[in-house]
Amino acid sequence: MNVVLSRDSQVRAMENTVTNAERYFGQFCSLLASYTRKTARLRDKADQLVKQLIDFANTENPELRATIRDFAEDLAKVQDYRQAEVERLEAKVISPLKLYGAQIKQTRADIKKCKRVQNNEIKQLEKLEKLRQKSPSDRQMISQAETSAQRASVDTNRSTLHLVETVDAFQEQKLKDLRRIFSDFVTIEMVFHAKAVEVYSSAFQTLENYDLERDLQVGLTSDFRAKTRGIYGHGEARPLTDTNPAPSVPWPLASQSAQSTMARQGKEAGGEEDSETDSVEEIPLEDLKGQQQGPRD
Amino acid sequence: MNVVLSRDSQVRAMENTVTNAERYFGQFCSLLASYTRKTARLRDKADQLVKQLIDFANTENPELRATIRDFAEDLAKVQDYRQAEVERLEAKVISPLKLYGAQIKQTRADIKKCKRVQNNEIKQLEKLEKLRQKSPSDRQMISQAETSAQRASVDTNRSTLHLVETVDAFQEQKLKDLRRIFSDFVTIEMVFHAKAVEVYSSAFQTLENYDLERDLQVGLTSDFRAKTRGIYGHGEARPLTDTNPAPSVPWPLASQSAQSTMARQGKEAGGEEDSETDSVEEIPLEDLKGQQQGPRD
Repeated sequence: MNVVLSRDSQVRAMENTVTNAERYFGQFCSLLASYTRKTARLRDKADQLVKQLIDFANTENPELRATIRDFAEDLAKVQDYRQAEVERLEAKVISPLKLYGAQIKQTRADIKKCKRVQNNEIKQLEKLEKLRQKSPSDRQMISQAETSAQRASVDTNRSTLHLVETVDAFQEQKLKDLRRIFSDFVTIEMVFHAKAVEVYSSAFQTLENYDLERDLQVGLTSDFRAKTRGIYGHGEARPLTDTNPAPSVPWPLASQSAQSTMARQGKEAGGEEDSETDSVEEIPLEDLKGQQQGPRD
Repeated sequence: MNVVLSRDSQVRAMENTVTNAERYFGQFCSLLASYTRKTARLRDKADQLVKQLIDFANTENPELRATIRDFAEDLAKVQDYRQAEVERLEAKVISPLKLYGAQIKQTRADIKKCKRVQNNEIKQLEKLEKLRQKSPSDRQMISQAETSAQRASVDTNRSTLHLVETVDAFQEQKLKDLRRIFSDFVTIEMVFHAKAVEVYSSAFQTLENYDLERDLQVGLTSDFRAKTRGIYGHGEARPLTDTNPAPSVPWPLASQSAQSTMARQGKEAGGEEDSETDSVEEIPLEDLKGQQQGPRD
């Protein structure tokens, strides 16, 4: 019965090979699918950031707006490449690994079939044994049983050899697939990272080129200064080289500011007039009453 | 009251600036924190893949084992760089954005304080108005109220100017921080992607260099073949250049195989013997009986 035992352990070894492949390829497949999903989530998160950056850019001054928009566009470009990465991982890594699962099932079915054939042989041999013990003189029956047992043995050998060939092919395919799938994985990742380096280099330049001083001169912040000057004393439009309004300008009272603000009604704040220091006494506080009753908007 | 209205709208504009910054910087912070967490998860997933690859390598033939191990090491190296990316994003992007939140709170507190001072001025002015209407002849009271109102106006102007300076500084800081934070983000990403390209290039080479044929010759699969040959007829050890056993070898019956397997007991399968084709008739099937009763293991 050693041939049966040997074949048995051989089939078990083949089963192990297939089970091993099933186990690891299954894990590779699920881990890489998860890796791809997580990459897609990273892309989604960066896309949200792009959206917020563009929203934010629209609330900012021209220089910053342009800079942030360019930066957001570059960031969006990286996400496009990430999307391509995700699609290619799905097509060239995950799909083949899934297909591999089907191949494993087929090989497993082949093993099962082979085991059935092997079991049939054992049955035939057992039948023959029984016959020999029970009716050792019935040569015809024994001869028939011997023929059946031999036929079963031939079947088993053929089936086992077929199985060996199948598992051989399976093993070779496994090695080839493994190399191809991981090479594709590496290529896809490499292309994505290379593109990202390229785009981020441009984004870095965009941020480096941002002329902060220009925004500080023309921006919201200098709108404040212009208004402040308009109201509080130094309305002349001059380039701002520091962030603090000049402290040397005389500090007017509220009544003065009221007058100068009134005088500027219908004009741009921060105009050329410089009349704020006139006549502290000329405008009585009573005037405030009428203004208080005026429209608040 | 136009000065109050103007100041009111000015403070509102400053509030909007701060609110805007709070809103967008808050979103940038939470999106980039989420981006960083998702990057960390991608790293975790790839680390799991590395672990599985090493486990798998240990079950494989030397060539594949070495290849997969090298590949796993490269993949692990990319994750080390990803880990550095995560740490640097936390330190140079997320932390500054969080700190920015504290700065916004301080500016918001300054605005609140300024509004309190402005409201006090309005109260003083209202008090003065009431006094003028109720007791227009009480010159002393009116004079006192006028002084208080003027003092409140001075306070308001000072406070508003201080606020303008604060918001100016806040704006400038915002622009500088924004540029620095996003530049750091881009640099961190760029460094990571560049390192990844470098490591994956090496990984690609590793996979390209994998000598699949050597594994097919010495591996598990040829163990099968050796055994197969041992049992089924062609036990000569020769280099395998195809995956199919030569079909020209005569196909022995189970009885022959039984003998040759028995003859090889204690020897390596796939030895040099070539006696399988001998004496089909010499080994009667009866012998199987004894073998059947032998130890099954």
